[in-house]
Amino acid sequence: MLRIVAITGMPGAGKSTAAQALVGQGWKRVVMGDVIRAETRRRGLEPNAKNTGEVMKSLREERGESAVADLCLEVITRTGADRVVVDGVRSVAEVEAFRERALVILVAVDASPERRFELLKERGRSDDPLTREMFEERDLRELGVGIGEAIALADIMISNEHATPDELAGEMAKAADRWMKDVSD
Amino acid sequence: MLRIVAITGMPGAGKSTAAQALVGQGWKRVVMGDVIRAETRRRGLEPNAKNTGEVMKSLREERGESAVADLCLEVITRTGADRVVVDGVRSVAEVEAFRERALVILVAVDASPERRFELLKERGRSDDPLTREMFEERDLRELGVGIGEAIALADIMISNEHATPDELAGEMAKAADRWMKDVSD
Repeated sequence: MLRIVAITGMPGAGKSTAAQALVGQGWKRVVMGDVIRAETRRRGLEPNAKNTGEVMKSLREERGESAVADLCLEVITRTGADRVVVDGVRSVAEVEAFRERALVILVAVDASPERRFELLKERGRSDDPLTREMFEERDLRELGVGIGEAIALADIMISNEHATPDELAGEMAKAADRWMKDVSD
Repeated sequence: MLRIVAITGMPGAGKSTAAQALVGQGWKRVVMGDVIRAETRRRGLEPNAKNTGEVMKSLREERGESAVADLCLEVITRTGADRVVVDGVRSVAEVEAFRERALVILVAVDASPERRFELLKERGRSDDPLTREMFEERDLRELGVGIGEAIALADIMISNEHATPDELAGEMAKAADRWMKDVSD
């Protein structure tokens, strides 16, 4: 049966670092943001924060709350992988869509707003906020699609408040190992 | 200036254990749920989960999203305390109401749904859920008022997934100490 480690967390919390840790252990990584950014480009728009947010919203309006998860499941099916880490879950509806097709563990990577703003400034991806105001707007957009609920209902919470990238990766790898042992018992 | 440690977290996560830890260190504890339960009784209703949920909703409809926080601030003012731990913050609007009147640190106490269900079964308070279905309904009611957003935006996340009550209390006390040092620098 397909096993999915579904990773959620606020912008800048460290989701990708955690997800990447599992790639080294043979997990296939699918980035929900990539699906949204690809769809944004397909619609002729630059994949900045505003446009990707709007495309995410319209995808959900057109195809339901689990629209992005459904697109991810299509990608997963095409790869044929049986252990997948999904990077960037944003709502409980998405988690439920995954649970209909796989054994799922929901992992939240957490850091305070202060810490996330610092981490995002270091990262500087095209859709990352440049000012505190843009950062807070982006947080509100993510919360608006239900990411707070997904974080609140996570099966595992991993703190990135004081961790180095290696420590965060190590925590994620350990948690995935424990889970794989639990579900194969 | 008034200092508030505002504690949020899903039902059963361990908010009260964390809050109680600060009482031993001279903080005044104000329980938002007590304010709601008192108001529920004042309206002639039994303070069970369903009624307190409805009263919380109607308070917000009548007096705005920060209604319960505003009632708490009245209680705090009457006590004259300058260090207060508020147990049971349920939305960002409430946090903002506190921030207008005090230096505030928002602490989320976190545990997985599995763990919280176990802890609630052990606790058995009058408004605690008896079945998994009631537990999930209660979670949804709390998420409906915005507790997920408050958890996602917490300044400090304390895990109660594997902690004993003493360990949880110790973590909370340490975090409050660090914060008091930070804000007096």
